[in-house]
Amino acid sequence: MTRISYVNGEYCDHSNSSIHIEDRGFQFADGVYEVFGITNSKIVDYQGHINRLYNSLNEIQLKSPIHKSAYFFHIKNLIKKNQVKNGLIYLQITRGVAERDFKFPKNIKPSLVIIAKNLPVYEYEKNFKKGIKIKTTKDLRWKRVDIKTINLLAPVLAKQYAADNECQEAWLIDEKGFITEGSSSTAWILKKNILYTTPLSNSILNGITRQSLIKGLKSNNLKYIEKKFNMKDIIEADEAYITSATQYVMPVIRVDKYKIGNGKIGKNAEIFKKVYMEAVKLS
Amino acid sequence: MTRISYVNGEYCDHSNSSIHIEDRGFQFADGVYEVFGITNSKIVDYQGHINRLYNSLNEIQLKSPIHKSAYFFHIKNLIKKNQVKNGLIYLQITRGVAERDFKFPKNIKPSLVIIAKNLPVYEYEKNFKKGIKIKTTKDLRWKRVDIKTINLLAPVLAKQYAADNECQEAWLIDEKGFITEGSSSTAWILKKNILYTTPLSNSILNGITRQSLIKGLKSNNLKYIEKKFNMKDIIEADEAYITSATQYVMPVIRVDKYKIGNGKIGKNAEIFKKVYMEAVKLS
Repeated sequence: MTRISYVNGEYCDHSNSSIHIEDRGFQFADGVYEVFGITNSKIVDYQGHINRLYNSLNEIQLKSPIHKSAYFFHIKNLIKKNQVKNGLIYLQITRGVAERDFKFPKNIKPSLVIIAKNLPVYEYEKNFKKGIKIKTTKDLRWKRVDIKTINLLAPVLAKQYAADNECQEAWLIDEKGFITEGSSSTAWILKKNILYTTPLSNSILNGITRQSLIKGLKSNNLKYIEKKFNMKDIIEADEAYITSATQYVMPVIRVDKYKIGNGKIGKNAEIFKKVYMEAVKLS
Repeated sequence: MTRISYVNGEYCDHSNSSIHIEDRGFQFADGVYEVFGITNSKIVDYQGHINRLYNSLNEIQLKSPIHKSAYFFHIKNLIKKNQVKNGLIYLQITRGVAERDFKFPKNIKPSLVIIAKNLPVYEYEKNFKKGIKIKTTKDLRWKRVDIKTINLLAPVLAKQYAADNECQEAWLIDEKGFITEGSSSTAWILKKNILYTTPLSNSILNGITRQSLIKGLKSNNLKYIEKKFNMKDIIEADEAYITSATQYVMPVIRVDKYKIGNGKIGKNAEIFKKVYMEAVKLS
């Protein structure tokens, strides 16, 4: 089966899908993106992701190159063409191709790229059973990470640093010692039956998975608080988690040299995962 | 004449020069770049730029895809093929093409793109005579702007904000009210015959033009100091400048609502330009 991607209005053989070397996404990271989780060929929380995409576009003064309703159509097409059962859709919009100049070029059409990817379910399940390890590192990112842009070198370097230390994710620490979030996920700890996550600001992304988990917690009367936490809180935590569009709810068993709880996945992991899965909308 | 660019080992028609949609430069801003000024078909300060390129590569743990000596060869080729008399060479290296994953992929070859551009000399001369206007704005960039990476959305938005306010450059202001640098240039003010520029740190780029101007100032016994300056200093300044690989030394006549000196280019502008031009190495 040929893998198919969408590039600026055309469905192309993925291996030959290309953009011009003066696309502003390539030269300036002048663009935004979304990752949609796919489960049983359905899109997880489509509306949340597409609304955030439009918010990101708006924040960097970029107009959608296609009508809002067309995204659903193209994503569904790619799911079909690539026979995605479980996996993800990666969607990126950049300011388009223009002679290199920092300021916005006039009258060019933004570039739109959509990529589908199959991910074996057993891998998520395997990781979920084992739990993951976290390495903390300084948050070096720019000051508007609430916008989901492709300026991702700082999280790339953080994730690689985690990998170099045999960890699966990095938690980023701000100048006051608080965890902002993971390099590509939201961070959570459970302490005395209360789930903590960092409150929304310009310093974290408003995670769609975070939103759905919170919705689920509310409807199940489970206690949570949006409050900054630091290393001391982590050491005192009973359980910990990350959430993201492709990791859903993933238990954390270690942060740096500190075991979380007894170093195995906590007894509430399955509960929060279930609460999340019930709260999402599939379309 | 067909414009020719260099892409991963090949000289291509610029209009058809492309990279894969999963190049990490496009998805993660996972790459570095340099801009070389070209004057009379010669490269300005080649060695300084190429050394900084290697430093940038090293900082993000990326290996050069070609031998160090080959850069000179390809740049010279592009100058010839595109008949560049005055203009620039833009050179970008990214981590290469791989299935999207934040951590570094293994065993892939970095991508190398080189673009040549003609710039009419009269435009620089015209701007030099008029001087440019500056708009200040918050420095929202990441914490390692000493590395010349393509994570450029923050400076892009700053430059556009300047353009929206009929200014040619933005000066970025840190949390303590000091100017770090321009969105794509180094910032300078002249106060009581002393030239001020921000000292090197992770918060500014070590400008090659900055280095050459300092070399020229030293050999001409002109007074300068590497010291942070703020809005109060700017208001008290007699003259102001930006420097960059393509703007060389460019006088500033206004910062926000404040005229610099009498609002016309200062009497030292020609001197500093000359001092710089004499200090550079052409090859």
